Amino acid sequence: MEISQELLTIGQRAKNAARRLAFMGTEAKNKSLAAMAEALTDHQEEILSANARDVQAAEKKGLRKSLINRLLLTEKSIKGMSEAIKEVIALPDPVGGGEFWTRPNGLRIQKTRVPLGVVAMIYEARPNVTVDAAALCLKSGNACILRGGSEAIESNKVLAQIISEAAENSGSPAGSIQLVAMTGREYALQLMKMNKYLDVIIPRGGAGLIQTVIENSTVPVIQTGTGVCHAFVDKDADLEKAAAIVYNSKTQNPGVCNALETLLVHEDVARNYLPLIGQKFKQNGVEIRGCEKVLCVLDYANPAEEQDWATEYLDLIISVKVVKDLDEALDHIYKYSTKHSETIITEDYSTAQRFLREIDAAVVYVNASTRFTDGGRFGFGAEIGISTQKLHARGPMALPELTTIKYMVYGDNQIV
Amino acid sequence: MEISQELLTIGQRAKNAARRLAFMGTEAKNKSLAAMAEALTDHQEEILSANARDVQAAEKKGLRKSLINRLLLTEKSIKGMSEAIKEVIALPDPVGGGEFWTRPNGLRIQKTRVPLGVVAMIYEARPNVTVDAAALCLKSGNACILRGGSEAIESNKVLAQIISEAAENSGSPAGSIQLVAMTGREYALQLMKMNKYLDVIIPRGGAGLIQTVIENSTVPVIQTGTGVCHAFVDKDADLEKAAAIVYNSKTQNPGVCNALETLLVHEDVARNYLPLIGQKFKQNGVEIRGCEKVLCVLDYANPAEEQDWATEYLDLIISVKVVKDLDEALDHIYKYSTKHSETIITEDYSTAQRFLREIDAAVVYVNASTRFTDGGRFGFGAEIGISTQKLHARGPMALPELTTIKYMVYGDNQIV
Repeated sequence: MEISQELLTIGQRAKNAARRLAFMGTEAKNKSLAAMAEALTDHQEEILSANARDVQAAEKKGLRKSLINRLLLTEKSIKGMSEAIKEVIALPDPVGGGEFWTRPNGLRIQKTRVPLGVVAMIYEARPNVTVDAAALCLKSGNACILRGGSEAIESNKVLAQIISEAAENSGSPAGSIQLVAMTGREYALQLMKMNKYLDVIIPRGGAGLIQTVIENSTVPVIQTGTGVCHAFVDKDADLEKAAAIVYNSKTQNPGVCNALETLLVHEDVARNYLPLIGQKFKQNGVEIRGCEKVLCVLDYANPAEEQDWATEYLDLIISVKVVKDLDEALDHIYKYSTKHSETIITEDYSTAQRFLREIDAAVVYVNASTRFTDGGRFGFGAEIGISTQKLHARGPMALPELTTIKYMVYGDNQIV
Repeated sequence: MEISQELLTIGQRAKNAARRLAFMGTEAKNKSLAAMAEALTDHQEEILSANARDVQAAEKKGLRKSLINRLLLTEKSIKGMSEAIKEVIALPDPVGGGEFWTRPNGLRIQKTRVPLGVVAMIYEARPNVTVDAAALCLKSGNACILRGGSEAIESNKVLAQIISEAAENSGSPAGSIQLVAMTGREYALQLMKMNKYLDVIIPRGGAGLIQTVIENSTVPVIQTGTGVCHAFVDKDADLEKAAAIVYNSKTQNPGVCNALETLLVHEDVARNYLPLIGQKFKQNGVEIRGCEKVLCVLDYANPAEEQDWATEYLDLIISVKVVKDLDEALDHIYKYSTKHSETIITEDYSTAQRFLREIDAAVVYVNASTRFTDGGRFGFGAEIGISTQKLHARGPMALPELTTIKYMVYGDNQIV
């Protein structure tokens, strides 16, 4: 595949920037972040007017209301982006720390954290990702190449220009923050082959985007996102609490990856529990797609089909299945899980421990909502995405996940 | 690409095994490892006779002597493989430890280490990789799929059968250790697309093999190996020590990735240092390929061409260049380095610190041989390969690098 000259130039500029960013001190990086935060509020009018063009184009194309809402920026959301950068300033610098040991021959080995180098983000819809990703990459000493969706292109162009200028004018190397303004799919595909320039690609968006990156990228990928999350209500669950947790997991924000998609109910409590949670769902407009046993108890449920068990609805729909025991629940989750977040509701110690141990997922909960899988809620202070792969990072990723290690070895003329 | 039924069966068996291996205790895993170690010495005759068939075939094909030596097993090397497994038994289990914190809402988050799942190794020549990789994977709770080179197929088949039977008969799940006995290239390519079954592919071998895996694998890859390693002899170097370190780095075992390939010499000391190291090389049959300035000083050196600076010789050849200062050395290394191991020889504090900080490589040394980049020499007790990528692992990889993390969250009915 031929890589366009524009992308090669972007790649080379990013590489040059990364070389200097790698040993830029925390104070210098924070100074740039502060300048970026200020520049956003200073250029509010410019951002709003670019965003209005995106929204207008989206309305003209007849995009769904929910997508247009994701696109929309307001004075308040611009202030929010600016505040988010200030929160990144307050976070500890992930670069420079580490372990240290001495070998019997006197070699002193320092295992230290360094930036990844050049991070490419490929994402959809929400323009605030442009600002969030740039801030987290800069704080961790990485150059970033941002490739947002075509719907947000006008907003992204203005946002990237404002923050990259602010960063450069305050001492960051030129090319630290760059946007790929070409929206054609071919440019995204070319980016995925730029191993000479990129250290990692992080896709953020729907399952289609992520699959495209996995299939086409020769650059190492951190896979984020898809969450077919399960809750298992055990026979020993407190049913009132189980209703609160399941309802919260499903409805508090159904459009996100840590929202619940499938509910499994132990057959011993199905007759008592299903009407309890079913009523709550029914009253709040949640469609239930159930197995046959569910349909026997809830006459307002629709029948689930095979594909329902593998579907991330991201909507007010839930699939519900009655299982005969913990083993069947574990088998069902093993088969359909995307290894994002799974929760059990039980008061039984051994059942809880078995679930924690045997479920293979980024996050496994006992008696809590799946919605806690989030960098902020985990206490990381930020989030660049939620990894559903096992290499490098798993679960919520924050600043340390944007670094790698480097061994510095202090010798006194040792030879082998 | 259609995946053959044999590979799908191997993949499914590995996945089933991995599900059980993930929570197999340390004592049970060590019991299997002990059985594997014993089985190897018990079946020595069988191994030697299979190996003789490989060696015979290799001689018939006219393979290079050095390749045949890599292939050759002896009573001593079989004992060595068995001892290596016993060393793995003595290593701490990388699974199960971690950090733990409590959130303000009472959620207790346990960040624990778990196995990756299914690890595929694609490797060349040396049959002991079959045994080493299987032992490290089992100890870290991973199922492994081994795909060795066609030259060692008879040895690998017997070795894999002996150790997998020993593992299963001593309580490990069926499918924990499997060899892909089909040597056709198409099977390796199919393996690289088995995302549903594999969590990682680790290629070990020449640059060609590694490039093929990077270009074709949709499964996450840990890139190992290629090392165009540099030494920079600074103007403030102790020249006698610099000669010892450089000579050791180049010649102690020239066929491995941490051996030195390029020597950079500060122009202020070139006239004194080059004859010193040049004589040592000349007397010991090391070919020198030098820049023009080197040729002026050493009349027995051959001229280096552009491609020499990017070549991993893995042989008694070294490229040598005179540079005007540290900056030129850093620029040269930046341009040609494969980011494996680089060393500086200097007595100047600030020069040493700048080299450590500004070189982007897995391991950076001051006044020591590059040959120390090795799991054993770093104190890890084992090595599954040396990563030259930045994601997941960098430098020598041992047992912890065969694990990932899992968050286990203990709740008391928290909702968002």
